[in-house]
Amino acid sequence: MKAPTTALLAEGAFGDEGASKTAYGILRYVPESVLAVIDSEHAGRDAFQVSGLGRGIPVVRDLAAAIALGAKRLVIGVAPAGGALPEKWRRDIVRALKKGMEVVSGLHTMLGEDEEFQAAAEEGGGRIVDLRRVPEDLDIAICRAQEVSAAVVLTVGTDCNTGKMTTALELAGEGTRRGIETRFCATGQTGIAIAGWGIAVDHAISDFTAGAAERLVLEAGKDKNVKLIVVEGQGALAQPMYSGVTLSLMHGSLPDALILCHRATQRKMDHVELPMPPLAEHVKMYEQAMRLVKPAKVKAIALNTRGLDEDSARRASETAQRETGLPAGDPIRFGAGFLLDAILEDSLKKVPLYSGPPR
Amino acid sequence: MKAPTTALLAEGAFGDEGASKTAYGILRYVPESVLAVIDSEHAGRDAFQVSGLGRGIPVVRDLAAAIALGAKRLVIGVAPAGGALPEKWRRDIVRALKKGMEVVSGLHTMLGEDEEFQAAAEEGGGRIVDLRRVPEDLDIAICRAQEVSAAVVLTVGTDCNTGKMTTALELAGEGTRRGIETRFCATGQTGIAIAGWGIAVDHAISDFTAGAAERLVLEAGKDKNVKLIVVEGQGALAQPMYSGVTLSLMHGSLPDALILCHRATQRKMDHVELPMPPLAEHVKMYEQAMRLVKPAKVKAIALNTRGLDEDSARRASETAQRETGLPAGDPIRFGAGFLLDAILEDSLKKVPLYSGPPR
Repeated sequence: MKAPTTALLAEGAFGDEGASKTAYGILRYVPESVLAVIDSEHAGRDAFQVSGLGRGIPVVRDLAAAIALGAKRLVIGVAPAGGALPEKWRRDIVRALKKGMEVVSGLHTMLGEDEEFQAAAEEGGGRIVDLRRVPEDLDIAICRAQEVSAAVVLTVGTDCNTGKMTTALELAGEGTRRGIETRFCATGQTGIAIAGWGIAVDHAISDFTAGAAERLVLEAGKDKNVKLIVVEGQGALAQPMYSGVTLSLMHGSLPDALILCHRATQRKMDHVELPMPPLAEHVKMYEQAMRLVKPAKVKAIALNTRGLDEDSARRASETAQRETGLPAGDPIRFGAGFLLDAILEDSLKKVPLYSGPPR
Repeated sequence: MKAPTTALLAEGAFGDEGASKTAYGILRYVPESVLAVIDSEHAGRDAFQVSGLGRGIPVVRDLAAAIALGAKRLVIGVAPAGGALPEKWRRDIVRALKKGMEVVSGLHTMLGEDEEFQAAAEEGGGRIVDLRRVPEDLDIAICRAQEVSAAVVLTVGTDCNTGKMTTALELAGEGTRRGIETRFCATGQTGIAIAGWGIAVDHAISDFTAGAAERLVLEAGKDKNVKLIVVEGQGALAQPMYSGVTLSLMHGSLPDALILCHRATQRKMDHVELPMPPLAEHVKMYEQAMRLVKPAKVKAIALNTRGLDEDSARRASETAQRETGLPAGDPIRFGAGFLLDAILEDSLKKVPLYSGPPR
């Protein structure tokens, strides 16, 4: 195993999973790559004490301390408030690039287009990786994802931020543990930081978003030994902010099964004044939106029960199961076995494309 | 009325509506702006003889002939095969810019980013208008379109190229004729060329496509006298290539009513190996996709009956009406009155946002 070389920049936000989603994702799924977390507020503590993740990884006060430990890679693990790059980070990024480090960013702002960063990288031999930069040769989708022999599973949600990436990673991990050749397709910056490849589909122009999903599935299915492809979902059909991205992912990746992710305690939609519809309504909406292209079904409910005690989490799972008639549970709390079981029920069978109305 | 100054470049494609869609759209809706059509194959004829549109407008052999007639504006009215700019056009565009003309393009390729064109424009005082260039400050949609007091109608389709722009323009025209203060929102390059404003939503990044639609509706509804806003649709929910763009438009513009456009003779989807689903299935899919955000309904079917004789067109309309239970007809052939009647049935009432399941 290689020595860890990554410093996670989580200044002012470590301890808040929502604000430092990328840092948490990396600590949960690839902790072996992490040398230190940078957050002056928690400096001197162990990452586990602050986040419940990354046992044995130190939190340090600044970039210099991380470099002293041997950091060669700086991953921006937090979204700055307001979207603009804080001045202090700019100094850190410049310093890291001048020291020849790799700087990895999932921000909408492309660091690689910044002249100061370009100059620093050139001077010190550093490298900028903008996770959200999409390939320039993206194209439209034309149902080519159907050509892969592996079964494709897509995680979808009742809203943004319901655990679609986590559920996809847990399901993929469970597949691998059971000896099924499985691939995870990352579609957002955190997933890409964890998996090391993928396309941030929300940054593609809208005509080519489905095409980006199609390309990921084709890439994952190139190896004919692959039996299961799990695609990370984005947004939600019932969330008007991002529903177009969601449908593009559905019609581009052509899943054989969907897993619906839901925050158990959520009563209204984020960002807009709309109530959270019942789970069964979401299921209907997703299946109707697939039907005329490829009639795939929702196979299970992945509940995010964060904030509930174990009893309440079990009750929430039972309620979800009753409301939808589908297996339901929290894959983080109770394991992703039930999700894989629901998929395996059909022995990873491919669902054919829409062939017209029943005669 | 101003003298016409526009030359429509339709070289090698005039006479083929599919290949020179923008030229046909402009000739149909703003013929008074057109001085000449450029197509060497038909030079010397009247535009009407070739296209059935633009009576009295001459077809000329080249740009020089159009300039001799007094052209001040060159609109590229045809999509070149393969997407690349033919060498002959490049020379014409350079010449036009050097002569101080305005050059209007709906190509994916941004003429304004081409160094030769930039230099020519600077030299001659010409101006480049890239219809597909989207505003740089687009943002996400958050249901603000619901704030306009006017009723919003969106044209949707069973596939691409079903007449969504034409139907929207005919409906808007019918509204104006009946004294209803009406606005048309263009969402594609041809619509923008006709209306003189709009956003080519298929060129927005996918996170902001719904936001682009929201912005158009807010802009159209600024004038409180406006009673009816007709939004030009794009793509189709059942067309996997573009379905994400379609849903973004739906959830961004928040229509109070949908008009479903369909080519009467179409039996399979364009570009992909999928059969054309029955009309009633499309209606169900559109209504289900609106339901959890704003439960608007499909109010009428706009049939495109090109290629059918009048009897067959009437029969096709009756069949569509029987299959869906909705008013159906060809707005180009029989007028858009029935579409406006279907909308007025609810006295332009606003549909409220989703408020949860029935109790």
